[in-house]
Formats: sequence, C-alpha cells, structure tokens
Amino acid sequence: MAGSPHVVILRLGHRPARDKRVTTHVCLTARAFGADGVLVSTRDRTLERTVRAVVDKFGGAFFIETGVAWRRVIREWKGTVVHLTMYGEPVDDVLPHLARDALLLVVGAEKVPSELFEVAHVNVAIGNQPHSEVAALAVFLDRLFAGSAVRREFGGSVRVVPSARGKRMRKG
Amino acid sequence: MAGSPHVVILRLGHRPARDKRVTTHVCLTARAFGADGVLVSTRDRTLERTVRAVVDKFGGAFFIETGVAWRRVIREWKGTVVHLTMYGEPVDDVLPHLARDALLLVVGAEKVPSELFEVAHVNVAIGNQPHSEVAALAVFLDRLFAGSAVRREFGGSVRVVPSARGKRMRKG
Repeated sequence: MAGSPHVVILRLGHRPARDKRVTTHVCLTARAFGADGVLVSTRDRTLERTVRAVVDKFGGAFFIETGVAWRRVIREWKGTVVHLTMYGEPVDDVLPHLARDALLLVVGAEKVPSELFEVAHVNVAIGNQPHSEVAALAVFLDRLFAGSAVRREFGGSVRVVPSARGKRMRKG
Repeated sequence: MAGSPHVVILRLGHRPARDKRVTTHVCLTARAFGADGVLVSTRDRTLERTVRAVVDKFGGAFFIETGVAWRRVIREWKGTVVHLTMYGEPVDDVLPHLARDALLLVVGAEKVPSELFEVAHVNVAIGNQPHSEVAALAVFLDRLFAGSAVRREFGGSVRVVPSARGKRMRKG
C-alpha cells in the first residue's frame, strides 16, 4: 500500500507435516492484511506452491521464501524486529510508539528459541493469553494499518464480489 | 465481559485428524478475544480436553461442546447468526449496524455447505481475500469489542506477566 510501512513476516519453527495448515494460514493472513511477503525458516516447496497459486489468482505482489537463515535475516534487517508472543508487552502500549519504517514481524510455532526474546527489538503480546499466531498476526496488522488493509484492492485475475448471500466471483 | 454481547462460536466442517491444530486455534482465539464458548459440529474428545486444560490453567468460564447438531443450533439461536466468509459483505459496512444481542459466529473449515449462506442472518467478510477463519474470528472479535478483549483479566491459576524480554508467569 502506498505510504504504508514495509512489513515482512518471519515464520519460525515450521514443521512441514505438522504445521502445514497453520503456516498456510499465517502466509495467507499476512498477504490479506497488507504484509509484503513471508520468510519461512524451514524449506517447504509445497507451501511455496500453495501460496504462489493464491497470489497468481487473487493478485498482489506478495512473496514467499522458505529455508531462510533466520538468525541472519534478523541480524541484517534494516528496521524494527517485532516478536509477537503472549509473554510480551501489551500491543496497546507498544503500537503508538513503534517506528513505522521496515517491520520484520516474527511469529513462532509452539516453541520458539529463547534467544528470540533477546534479539527482537520489541516483544509484543496481543493479549497475554494463549491463542494463535494467526490471530496475533491478523490483529496486529489490522491495527497497524488502522483497519485499511481489508479494503485494499489486489487486482487479481479473479475477484470476489461482496454479497449478502452466496458466492459471487468475477474475472479481472 | 460485563455489558458485552453474549458471543458463541459455531465451528463447522472440523475433521479431527486434518484440522486438529486450526480448530484448536479457533477455540483458543475465541476464548482470548472475549467469546463465551465454542460449539463444534464434529465430536472430538481430544479437542475438548485440550481446550478445557487451557481454561483450567488460564481462567475464565469459556465452554466447549463438540458433536452438536449445527442446523438445530442455528435454527434455535435466540439472536443474530453471523457467518464469517470471504464472500460476504464488508465488515466495515456490517458491524456498525449489527444488533448487539446474542451473536452466533459461524466459521467453516475449507468448504461450507451452501445452505449456510441462506440460514445465516448476515454473511460478513473480513476482507474479500482468502486467508484464515482464525484471522477472521480474531479481527471480528477485536473490532466487536473495540480492542478491549485483549485487556481482559481471566483470573486464572497462572498468569503471564507482560515483559519486555523473556517469559514471566506467576501463580494466581
């Protein structure tokens, strides 16, 4: 989105068999709520194909790369590294003061390496209850973009026509 | 939450092996973002145990029931039935006019029966892009409660102490 912060998601701890669906949800949520792309620490060609097929059909310039060296990604990131975790500081306190430059949003699977709490610039909680990295990411992005991401046009080859009843789609 | 609408989630199309993690995320997100409980159309004792273990530890009065007759639940619901779907009307248009009585929020897995679009009072999209029922539910509830759900106290036997670094928890 023009004038919006550049946002990339870094997904850690993905185990292709076990986390297939949840990581797919992380990727599609990142795209739908305005992130530019996702980096996944584990190599997973199937996941890449799934996400790219959605981008090809529904539009936008969202990228995915899997098998990244996550420590290096964090170390070399030119901007703010935000770790979403139930143990972090309240999003209500953090978001108003967050630098709106390039954001790397880190979301783990069930366990994350404890060093992540140290190397992130900010550890942010979307509530301090256990829930879901998909939920945390969606709400963080919805608030970051003040609700505007869901109104964005993606310019895909197919698009949904919002309807009171049933499923309507049209081409281009 | 006192004075808040009564909100129950109805999860359709859950296949215990395939959707185990995503449905768990749906349930925990519902609880963390202020819903009263969740009804799951497929019987799944393991899911019930997982969710109840979180409630026992982290508090609140959230309930789960699995193996419900979903058509009857919808038919007999005293309040508004809201179906969250990428094909629906924009949340920005719907939410300001939604009756704040008892809400039944219906979320499907990959495919939902087409009759659902007819029996729901409202079909609502959190953006018209494919993403995740976990994301849709989180953002809908975050907006419904105007961001207050994540500040709620659950009074559990353990609680997280929000921290800039690391994991801190305390009893009671």
